[in-house]
Amino acid sequence: MRISIYRKAHFNAAHRLHNDDWSDEKNREVFGKCNNPHYHGHNYELEVRLTGEIDPITGYLYDLAHLSQLIKEHIEERYDHKNLNLECPEFKDQNPTAELICIEIWKILRSKLQDKFELGVRLWETPRNYVEYPA
Amino acid sequence: MRISIYRKAHFNAAHRLHNDDWSDEKNREVFGKCNNPHYHGHNYELEVRLTGEIDPITGYLYDLAHLSQLIKEHIEERYDHKNLNLECPEFKDQNPTAELICIEIWKILRSKLQDKFELGVRLWETPRNYVEYPA
Amino acid sequence: MRISIYRKAHFNAAHRLHNDDWSDEKNREVFGKCNNPHYHGHNYELEVRLTGEIDPITGYLYDLAHLSQLIKEHIEERYDHKNLNLECPEFKDQNPTAELICIEIWKILRSKLQDKFELGVRLWETPRNYVEYPA
Amino acid sequence: MRISIYRKAHFNAAHRLHNDDWSDEKNREVFGKCNNPHYHGHNYELEVRLTGEIDPITGYLYDLAHLSQLIKEHIEERYDHKNLNLECPEFKDQNPTAELICIEIWKILRSKLQDKFELGVRLWETPRNYVEYPA
Amino acid sequence: MRISIYRKAHFNAAHRLHNDDWSDEKNREVFGKCNNPHYHGHNYELEVRLTGEIDPITGYLYDLAHLSQLIKEHIEERYDHKNLNLECPEFKDQNPTAELICIEIWKILRSKLQDKFELGVRLWETPRNYVEYPA
Amino acid sequence: MRISIYRKAHFNAAHRLHNDDWSDEKNREVFGKCNNPHYHGHNYELEVRLTGEIDPITGYLYDLAHLSQLIKEHIEERYDHKNLNLECPEFKDQNPTAELICIEIWKILRSKLQDKFELGVRLWETPRNYVEYPA
Repeated sequence: MRISIYRKAHFNAAHRLHNDDWSDEKNREVFGKCNNPHYHGHNYELEVRLTGEIDPITGYLYDLAHLSQLIKEHIEERYDHKNLNLECPEFKDQNPTAELICIEIWKILRSKLQDKFELGVRLWETPRNYVEYPA
Repeated sequence: MRISIYRKAHFNAAHRLHNDDWSDEKNREVFGKCNNPHYHGHNYELEVRLTGEIDPITGYLYDLAHLSQLIKEHIEERYDHKNLNLECPEFKDQNPTAELICIEIWKILRSKLQDKFELGVRLWETPRNYVEYPA
Repeated sequence: MRISIYRKAHFNAAHRLHNDDWSDEKNREVFGKCNNPHYHGHNYELEVRLTGEIDPITGYLYDLAHLSQLIKEHIEERYDHKNLNLECPEFKDQNPTAELICIEIWKILRSKLQDKFELGVRLWETPRNYVEYPA
Repeated sequence: MRISIYRKAHFNAAHRLHNDDWSDEKNREVFGKCNNPHYHGHNYELEVRLTGEIDPITGYLYDLAHLSQLIKEHIEERYDHKNLNLECPEFKDQNPTAELICIEIWKILRSKLQDKFELGVRLWETPRNYVEYPA
Repeated sequence: MRISIYRKAHFNAAHRLHNDDWSDEKNREVFGKCNNPHYHGHNYELEVRLTGEIDPITGYLYDLAHLSQLIKEHIEERYDHKNLNLECPEFKDQNPTAELICIEIWKILRSKLQDKFELGVRLWETPRNYVEYPA
Repeated sequence: MRISIYRKAHFNAAHRLHNDDWSDEKNREVFGKCNNPHYHGHNYELEVRLTGEIDPITGYLYDLAHLSQLIKEHIEERYDHKNLNLECPEFKDQNPTAELICIEIWKILRSKLQDKFELGVRLWETPRNYVEYPA
């Protein structure tokens, strides 16, 4: 009786996409408006999925209040109202694309959860674009 | 050419989470505000997924008007505007958590559908929390 | 330069519609499924609107963090995960219809805000039904 | 490190469901209001999913501006503000059901994308009904 | 204590915008893709607002089940799965634009409601375009 | 027969709230996380409302394709993927709060529309916070 539970959260942040090894021209060509050196930003919407067996005593897979607190403490406090390029070391050597932010969030939450729970993360950069890890 | 179709529905209900074997204190500690003895409630949003082969004559996997009627008759009429703890025998010996309501809905619909259709159920307890069975 | 700002919030509660002066039959006729003596419930979504002049120093009409805190302290803590009929004295002598809950919320917030702000409240009982006070 | 990215798009179209081999009565019985000979229509919402490996140089799975342009050029321009039965040859010999429109969209996009990307398509016919291919 | 209540509904229909007094060229210039002679269609979302005094006995402004039934009987049954140009005489001599459909819906509902209720109608033609009457 | 039409649009931008006349401490106290010197950002959702008389020849209040183009040319191109503080001179001497961005958008659109149309603008900074001008 494996089941999945989902919890939504959100944070707002600024970012910029850029590759230091490229010319300005090539950066603008590949990243377009996302290359703006002055940054732009998004309301990131996050959806966390845990999969596993229901606890027969409580009827819960996992206490959603705990999951919500975990996301708040480790994800929202880290990224909310931040400049991802300047203030988050994990984006010093890689671009804060939706894909890579999603994987970083997955890694952080993975380290806080017991192995018996399978973990999935979806991240909306805009209401029309989002990513999911693992696929 | 296997395809999935989805149909949304909804019902409103009251519930309470509680374990008779525990002290009041332990119940409040584990279930928090959801343990309120006077009940609270939700607008449950439901999404039913059928998977299978398209009928080459109609171009349908399954007639959505039939699926909608099936959900109305067996799920909405059973749970809408009900107190899940007091009026639904399936929650006499287990908590009406989103997880267990979702599994009960799956069992009811499973018994009404031909085996050739794979069935999935998602149940939103709030716009930010939902569950999916099977995982 | 009058402007309006809006802030959304939410709470979950159980309720029942009933008129003690009427027979059970008349109550069922008028209130239908909402008359269920065992209660049912909703995810109430709330939208609070303040109207006034922008503060030229901050560029704010009103600090949204304060407004959010005000709603949390006086509305969410009062109604969230409650049985409106049994636990909220304001619904002892009047029905907890969406209309009357909306007016009670307006009265509470009105008493906490300076007169220079005009106040409006919208309350969704379901995604398809809502009320607004004042009209 | 396989990841999925999603992009939403939309188009409006008229259609009718009908089987030429059947009597008018049988058509009405099976397809109901969708059999109206004068057509009816929908705002179709589309969600395209690509799955694959992230490009370590850009941090992208696939440039969303390209994906958006691909959908606009090959799907929106083909179906937007069209009568699917009369103007789209792919629905000359099969019904424009949500299921079959979804598969046609998948086929078109599949032919425009490199094999290394796995492709999925979801198509909403209304906010409450949608389909997904492959399952 | 005037309050407003809102109820949502929806219908799907085909339409075409065209002026018989104009050349085909002028029609295409003014109405663009909406002039397609083969029609296109939409999922119309409707929101009906009633304003008035709360009934002190029930706590209702108006029974939402009655309002829902009124909309179903007089609006949804008239327009759902119809071709507005060919099947609705009110659009024989005027274009079925969102503006004019909204006014027709207002006129129909106005004739079914007591004068003491003020009436407003919003009509979404797509999730990004809508109209409201009266202004 | 005055009616209103609404059109939605969106842009993404970075910003920071700050008052140069204040100490860093006072800025942090008043603006909280929004004072981050490295900026943060939002997906701004915009809703433009025009009110006036329907053109009896077309059945339109205003051609939505024109309105959409006007918003794209004068608002989206100005603000999308920008740093509002650094790249938009209108926010050199005033804070880019939602309130003041909304008024700037109103002023720009007001100058592009005929006087016979009344204009209103709503701006969402997040899905839970928005402003409207005029009130």
